[in-house]
Amino acid sequence: MHPLEKMFRPRSVAVVGASGDPEKLGGRTLLHLKELGYQGRIYPINVSAKEVQGLPAWRSVADLPETPDCALILLPAPLVAQAIEDCAARGVKFAQVLSSGFAEEGGEGVAMQARLGEQARAHGIRLTGPNCLGSISPPDGFFGTFSSLLATAKPPPGSVGVATQSGAYGSHIYAVAGFRGIGISRAIATGNEVDIDVAEAIDYLADDPGTRVICASLEGCGNGDGLRRALLKAAALRKPVIIMKVGSSEVGAAAAATHTGSLAGEDRVIDTVFRECGALRVSSIEEMLDVAYLCAIAPLPPLVSAGIVSVSGGIGVLMADACIEAGLSVPALSVDALDAIRAVQPMAGGRNPIDTTAQLAGRLHVIETISQSMMGGADLGALFFYLAHLGRDMTRFPKVEGAFLALRRRQPDRTVVAVMTHIDEVRQQLEAMGVPVFEDPTRAVRAVAGAARLRRLQAEAEPVPGIATAAPLGMTVANEAQAKALLAAAGVSVLPEEACAGAEAAVAAADRLGYPVVMKILSDDIPHKTEVGGVMLNVADGTAVRAAFATLTERAGIARPDARLDGVLVAPMARGGVETIIGTLTDPVFGPMVMFGLGGVAVELFRDVAFASAPLTPQRAEALIDASRGAALLKGWRGGPALDRAALVEALCALSRFAAAHADEIDSVEVNPFLVRETGACALDALVAFRAED
Amino acid sequence: MHPLEKMFRPRSVAVVGASGDPEKLGGRTLLHLKELGYQGRIYPINVSAKEVQGLPAWRSVADLPETPDCALILLPAPLVAQAIEDCAARGVKFAQVLSSGFAEEGGEGVAMQARLGEQARAHGIRLTGPNCLGSISPPDGFFGTFSSLLATAKPPPGSVGVATQSGAYGSHIYAVAGFRGIGISRAIATGNEVDIDVAEAIDYLADDPGTRVICASLEGCGNGDGLRRALLKAAALRKPVIIMKVGSSEVGAAAAATHTGSLAGEDRVIDTVFRECGALRVSSIEEMLDVAYLCAIAPLPPLVSAGIVSVSGGIGVLMADACIEAGLSVPALSVDALDAIRAVQPMAGGRNPIDTTAQLAGRLHVIETISQSMMGGADLGALFFYLAHLGRDMTRFPKVEGAFLALRRRQPDRTVVAVMTHIDEVRQQLEAMGVPVFEDPTRAVRAVAGAARLRRLQAEAEPVPGIATAAPLGMTVANEAQAKALLAAAGVSVLPEEACAGAEAAVAAADRLGYPVVMKILSDDIPHKTEVGGVMLNVADGTAVRAAFATLTERAGIARPDARLDGVLVAPMARGGVETIIGTLTDPVFGPMVMFGLGGVAVELFRDVAFASAPLTPQRAEALIDASRGAALLKGWRGGPALDRAALVEALCALSRFAAAHADEIDSVEVNPFLVRETGACALDALVAFRAED
Repeated sequence: MHPLEKMFRPRSVAVVGASGDPEKLGGRTLLHLKELGYQGRIYPINVSAKEVQGLPAWRSVADLPETPDCALILLPAPLVAQAIEDCAARGVKFAQVLSSGFAEEGGEGVAMQARLGEQARAHGIRLTGPNCLGSISPPDGFFGTFSSLLATAKPPPGSVGVATQSGAYGSHIYAVAGFRGIGISRAIATGNEVDIDVAEAIDYLADDPGTRVICASLEGCGNGDGLRRALLKAAALRKPVIIMKVGSSEVGAAAAATHTGSLAGEDRVIDTVFRECGALRVSSIEEMLDVAYLCAIAPLPPLVSAGIVSVSGGIGVLMADACIEAGLSVPALSVDALDAIRAVQPMAGGRNPIDTTAQLAGRLHVIETISQSMMGGADLGALFFYLAHLGRDMTRFPKVEGAFLALRRRQPDRTVVAVMTHIDEVRQQLEAMGVPVFEDPTRAVRAVAGAARLRRLQAEAEPVPGIATAAPLGMTVANEAQAKALLAAAGVSVLPEEACAGAEAAVAAADRLGYPVVMKILSDDIPHKTEVGGVMLNVADGTAVRAAFATLTERAGIARPDARLDGVLVAPMARGGVETIIGTLTDPVFGPMVMFGLGGVAVELFRDVAFASAPLTPQRAEALIDASRGAALLKGWRGGPALDRAALVEALCALSRFAAAHADEIDSVEVNPFLVRETGACALDALVAFRAED
Repeated sequence: MHPLEKMFRPRSVAVVGASGDPEKLGGRTLLHLKELGYQGRIYPINVSAKEVQGLPAWRSVADLPETPDCALILLPAPLVAQAIEDCAARGVKFAQVLSSGFAEEGGEGVAMQARLGEQARAHGIRLTGPNCLGSISPPDGFFGTFSSLLATAKPPPGSVGVATQSGAYGSHIYAVAGFRGIGISRAIATGNEVDIDVAEAIDYLADDPGTRVICASLEGCGNGDGLRRALLKAAALRKPVIIMKVGSSEVGAAAAATHTGSLAGEDRVIDTVFRECGALRVSSIEEMLDVAYLCAIAPLPPLVSAGIVSVSGGIGVLMADACIEAGLSVPALSVDALDAIRAVQPMAGGRNPIDTTAQLAGRLHVIETISQSMMGGADLGALFFYLAHLGRDMTRFPKVEGAFLALRRRQPDRTVVAVMTHIDEVRQQLEAMGVPVFEDPTRAVRAVAGAARLRRLQAEAEPVPGIATAAPLGMTVANEAQAKALLAAAGVSVLPEEACAGAEAAVAAADRLGYPVVMKILSDDIPHKTEVGGVMLNVADGTAVRAAFATLTERAGIARPDARLDGVLVAPMARGGVETIIGTLTDPVFGPMVMFGLGGVAVELFRDVAFASAPLTPQRAEALIDASRGAALLKGWRGGPALDRAALVEALCALSRFAAAHADEIDSVEVNPFLVRETGACALDALVAFRAED
């Protein structure tokens, strides 16, 4: 049994602050427990009443005749501490504090919340909230919440679990799910998360046999390791996790920080962690429920490809476009398959999508032959049927129902989706066979594409390899030469170069390295050299080296009169190859991350940069490279030679190990450009930023 | 009265091929006319029966006692021609041929369709179809279609007009619209478009006073000018056009071509034409209906900015993210506005989105104060209210209803949207006030963003300027030097350079131009010089010029032994500035287009290229540049100097005039790179492709 089982599915519950007035939160919550089918024992707690809403009431949890599995606390904030003491006295192990007035109000609320957390830990009480909307378990008839939704609608029982930080967010999800006929297993809102957070709720739902699909939403995350572990557990169990993290825009992140006080974090880091841990990130509640609905009913597509059968040519084309846009291929069928289809439906056009014309409807054997031929005629992960208004027609629908059943039996691991306008009865019949039904063609395609992506992410999910913390570097700042020396020692290939304090030393270095050379001003205080005119390319001979030394020193002196200058770096001119950017950053929540992108303007202008958790394995480095569009340049561009991808992989792995082993010290590394050539690759510039002292 | 009025809204109609069997198409169509409220006169035409479905029947249209406004023809394809003759004999001016078996079947069907078109033109009959689903006008109770939808649902009357090529596509749109309570004015499916096409249907709907919003869908387009004119008319009348063009992906385009035999065209050209003509392109039916719903009820947002009031902090953040993603700004409110809000709602957090906490619900004066303060505290085109489940609660909703009414009265030109779970009754009450209601927060945001964009597009829409056809160039092929000479004559600045037949001429040219120079092989037969090693940069002196001449000639001879070589081009090395690509193409449907993108890998790797119809005005050239992300580089990158944007505008205008004036001769022009410098800009390379002889 999962340690949180009694929190999510209590067999007895105390309502602390129970009221006879259903307009009050403590009254409404008690009403929901009483009226919506809960079979467990309910203990209203009220300091003055002997009876509340017809149930015998107690003055304190401490007075109860048994230890309830869970206490729901709805008292004003200043009274919560005493209620927790009473719970401890009675041996209660789980409490949900629905009261507001804590950290979300700032000021004294922050301190009160911190004390609440300490108090619970001291007593060994696991706590949800404060400032949360409670939890529900519809299969148990348990609705431990004051959500206003329940006045008019009760979410039906089912297999979708919901874990959100925000209460209204969660109730919106399970409300809309219910309207669509998607049943809920458990839902919890974690509120201010002084103890239990969304990550731990996901961990519970991953283990919960009543939950088949998990929907989660975060506004912030304080425990990166816990979230990674929970997501990886669900992925290993092949339980789909569909997740949202709001605050992806700057204005949204600022609002989320105000709202919850949570760390926002770099959005692309969150994105990376979700992906690496096998969870599908979505950006709207509707998209979340579309994928959840599909996953709750049908197998996830084993291949990222789809077949389309449509009674309308136009809708078939629309769906093909949507597939390509969403990342599903639409492979042409074999000639044999097409011949078999045309034998039963001579009018059928196309090679996939198949346009059956409106004559398909109602002809069972035609649908059977077409679906069989499509599945045999290409490797398809999913098959869509667009059937116009057949789903509203109970005289014609039963004639084709059997074709769907036969298809599901023959292809139990493929996803079969019906798209049509429909009535509930038809939808439910198809759902019972494992065939999800959508009204909108594009939403159907996006849901299948999401599920296919989710399945691939689950299969690829793996923990970030561990790495021992390295001996401290003993530095807090590094100029370019020192940064490159650190990287070279870590195994990142660096262009040979020499730091020269004076002009004559620079000439001697250039003579050794070979002309032409590049010369760069060297100073801890000038991290961005080009902005001060601190780089000179193609310096051709000794005379030019002397002149360049003088020019660089003069420019730096004018632009940054306070900067301490360490001379210049002299390096041979590197030609050919492709300039990339490799780097790392240490995320406050998720730790060291490594990034890759194309050099030049690609990162800034097109945001073409990919992230991965550090350290990398060679395989994960390959995936990181492929996640950037710049990867195409490495294969040989416009007939040019292929570049040394292996050298890039080696450098990324070395850099990622360096960043991970020194995560306590190093804030970020930027190697820009990192030149990948036909043979070999090397850093041309490097910047290492150390973490500020605490 | 629009010339097509009687086609869309006939007062009398003949059903040619009317049947007593409602399973047959001619029976079902007659049934729809009889049973769904049509007040006009219905004339069944049947060769053998005296009576069909209880109505007196005629043998032929020619025998009718009056000339019907429109004939619906549902006969087998080979019998249609005689029916048209009969219509002509009776003076019928409009016919809709719902019969299939024409061009969509290939073979003889193609010829039969062509004959049908000629026949109708000869008789002055305007014709919809063949192979179409007919048309409906719900406010008139007119349903001249055999759509199977009507067996179970009748689209309600309203103000949204629908014009599609595909019948099933159209019936899907009006079916789903009806389920959502969106009423339809007229809907027509144009089928094989032997005469009337979607463009002409849009033209009708633009004039139709019963239509407030137009939804249209194309699979192909044969009449670019007609489509431009219709869209511009609607934009000038400020009637929103929301349009889809399927076949945007390669596989979709191939399927569309198979399906309709229509020209697919370059998708980005279609995109450009829609935008320039003030229509909003969408990619799903749901998105189309979301925007149409909003536009049918509310004013379009006059500014591309939004305020968000949410009873849930999390949903507020979600909506802020969605706004930014969709292109709506979310400006922070003024301090005064925030003070006013906190005076009535001390708990309210944020600066926009405003998190009111759940305590907002039901408090009329709070909602009034907040909305008033928001509208006064920033320039907002739209205001969103997220109200959780208030829309399901008829005890609480009436308490806030007045606040919406007051807001609409005070801000009649702003868009106010309610987002909540809701029952139909609440939705309809808000709709009656001009407040659209959405369940999903993200869809609400996207609909408002679409409407805001649509309003801007309408305001900016203008016809492409006309230009006289120029005297023919008298060429069918041009090498690089000739191409540059053409462009220079057209007013596009070109780097000074010389074509040299021999090595000594090249040395003399280099001496004149100044070293270092660039040398390029010159041949009509080698359009892509770099692929054969045909370009040498940084040629330093006379000796090097001689050697380079020999090398280039040798390489070209090896790579393309058959190529006719015209010597080499010698030009000074151009340094500095930003490399862009400018070009033109002549679209078979929409004529000459001009394109702009960043040079290097941006176009191919990131598809960062923008199109506009040619010729350009300077203002439209500016917009074209700004539509590319590369525009950022022109402003001065990383502290570098701003580049000569005026010179780029001049070149784009000149190039666009050249392409438009020679559209009959020239297929495409590619100037890559076109170098934009601190002062001036010039073509470094150019390729002019002529149209193949017909």
